Amino acid sequence: MTRTGDHAASAVDLGRADTTTAPEPVFRAGDADVVRAVDGHLARYLADRRAESLDLDDSFTTELVDPLAAFVREGGKRIRPLFAWWGWRAAGGADTGDEADAVLRAVSAVELVHACALVHDDVMDDSDVRRGRPAVHVAMETMHRDAGMRGDGAGFGRSVAILVGDLALCWADDMLHQSGVPHEKLHRAGAAWRAMRTEMMAGQFLDLRNQAAGSESIESALRVNLLKTAGYTVQQPLRLGALLGGASREVTAALHDYGADLGIAFQLRDDLLGVFGEPETTGKPAGDDIREGKHTVLVNEALRLADTEGRPAASATLRAALGDADLSRETLAEVRDLLVETGAVALVERRIETLAASAVDRLSTVDLPEPAAARLRTLADAMVRRDV
Amino acid sequence: MTRTGDHAASAVDLGRADTTTAPEPVFRAGDADVVRAVDGHLARYLADRRAESLDLDDSFTTELVDPLAAFVREGGKRIRPLFAWWGWRAAGGADTGDEADAVLRAVSAVELVHACALVHDDVMDDSDVRRGRPAVHVAMETMHRDAGMRGDGAGFGRSVAILVGDLALCWADDMLHQSGVPHEKLHRAGAAWRAMRTEMMAGQFLDLRNQAAGSESIESALRVNLLKTAGYTVQQPLRLGALLGGASREVTAALHDYGADLGIAFQLRDDLLGVFGEPETTGKPAGDDIREGKHTVLVNEALRLADTEGRPAASATLRAALGDADLSRETLAEVRDLLVETGAVALVERRIETLAASAVDRLSTVDLPEPAAARLRTLADAMVRRDV
Repeated sequence: MTRTGDHAASAVDLGRADTTTAPEPVFRAGDADVVRAVDGHLARYLADRRAESLDLDDSFTTELVDPLAAFVREGGKRIRPLFAWWGWRAAGGADTGDEADAVLRAVSAVELVHACALVHDDVMDDSDVRRGRPAVHVAMETMHRDAGMRGDGAGFGRSVAILVGDLALCWADDMLHQSGVPHEKLHRAGAAWRAMRTEMMAGQFLDLRNQAAGSESIESALRVNLLKTAGYTVQQPLRLGALLGGASREVTAALHDYGADLGIAFQLRDDLLGVFGEPETTGKPAGDDIREGKHTVLVNEALRLADTEGRPAASATLRAALGDADLSRETLAEVRDLLVETGAVALVERRIETLAASAVDRLSTVDLPEPAAARLRTLADAMVRRDV
Repeated sequence: MTRTGDHAASAVDLGRADTTTAPEPVFRAGDADVVRAVDGHLARYLADRRAESLDLDDSFTTELVDPLAAFVREGGKRIRPLFAWWGWRAAGGADTGDEADAVLRAVSAVELVHACALVHDDVMDDSDVRRGRPAVHVAMETMHRDAGMRGDGAGFGRSVAILVGDLALCWADDMLHQSGVPHEKLHRAGAAWRAMRTEMMAGQFLDLRNQAAGSESIESALRVNLLKTAGYTVQQPLRLGALLGGASREVTAALHDYGADLGIAFQLRDDLLGVFGEPETTGKPAGDDIREGKHTVLVNEALRLADTEGRPAASATLRAALGDADLSRETLAEVRDLLVETGAVALVERRIETLAASAVDRLSTVDLPEPAAARLRTLADAMVRRDV
């Protein structure tokens, strides 16, 4: 269905320090290098679970646990843990120390939820490529073929990918509850953890459903964005951190509004990338959203504009291209032109700007400690930057 | 892959009171009617989450949450919660009262893990029928067709079923952590909760892998049984309850050994049902294990016996039937005869008896409170009863 916005900003923008040699995972990094600390905690947690898994069965370790660990290690800009961390810091949580370490571990667990979302998403969309590499189910189909196994290789690949995602989802909960965050604080933050996962699944479902129904409703496309990107990617991770840090009602409300605006802006940027982005940037084939028949806000705005301006040929071309698995480069170029000509691209760009500005404005209505306030502003900017 | 042993005992045997009219869900039932109390807790938890889900999106509620709730409501003998409850009682946990209620809620959560296991299992196996009804992915494919949706209906059905399972897995954790069991006790029982889910997935993976590899190893088939049925179905649920109740090391060890023997016996009974059981009993088409190419202990013992006794025609027939999606009634009858003639059925029956006896013996090595000791003996008997 989507890349859930993961391609709208580069790793460096989002705070990963530019270190090309990493001798040891860093666990006590705090504000200075949140992303690398998250990487380190994930690597250590997965290494521990891998060691345990050897007691169960070798093939489970090498063919299910290892692919999961590789998937988590190799990808992602850790956007959700970053928001959760800055939610914690905005609530006045400490930068360093034992509790900060425990919180870093807890927020890293969100990446395991996300691993499930992506691996299962690729199965659901029958997407071959993720982050420029073969999707998990494709890699597993290849293993099936190379090992000369019997039966349907594609089915085997799908099945293993379902299990990889399930394992990630279970271990996400385990990592949260083994993080060392005191029980009462975890309990307090439970509402955000629950909402985050449920909203992700509601968003995935609605996205799938809109696609199957060929829904041209802009409202329905916006609701997907609200659930999947605003809720799951920004608001609930922020709230998770804020609740861990015991944020006031005012701070929580401000972060909630910031997250809603920023999340939608981020998804709109992602919608643009899904059509105009190049594979080097997105890790997905060019025009993937059109090929998959995604009724994004961008696409539905273009259809609305073409219809209201009496351009039936334009909307017919667009409708025919949507869901065309064999979309040619020429037709994709035509679709791109159409999205520009109808004014849909300009409209979406304007909306992104307005939303990003309103997100940042909302932060200044409360007294947030630094550097949290500044970093949340930078994050907003990085997430919606024009890089198409 | 399997029915994970759910058809080897009837509901009444396992302690569901024989009430045909149930005006209200029973939450404070304790020993008298554990199964109905579990039903009640599940119904209430899912109703609460459903009410919350209405804030997200109506179609999410009616097309994802409701099918999950129906699946959980309609099926299952609550075997895993039962073992967890008797683990709690064996450890000296109370029969009634607030804490007992909280524990009943906590152990009910295991059924949501199991819902995920079954719904995803049917997708992985491409099984059309579950509990005598259309599998979730099949029902969703029907919805796609009836609503005149676009695209591949089978793919849509699979995708929705993946999300139904994911939701069940998330809500399982949520239900456990919202059960009201004091945090320290939940934390203490975390090891069993973690192991239970990981062993389930390791077992599913290994089962899938053995099938694809056409593994004729008896050791490997036994390992699947150890992980998937002994570990996931009996040992870890028992341990979950025992840890919640603060069981001594001796009691935990005795329950562990009881669970290993009983779990394997249960799976062997299930292997017999997978070939000899009738659809009314199993809720699956006759001979499903053969059709799916499952290399169970039963099948691999028959192959070994046919090979050692120099009966190449017999093993050729059996090998050809395994994984034959169009298996005829005649060939199934032939396979059944073969499994009897080689002595594999008798061997497996003897092993079930030995294991069941040894499971019960193990209980008498420790001083367990009544009625826990008696109920664990009854459960062992019910689970391995000959009803093929």
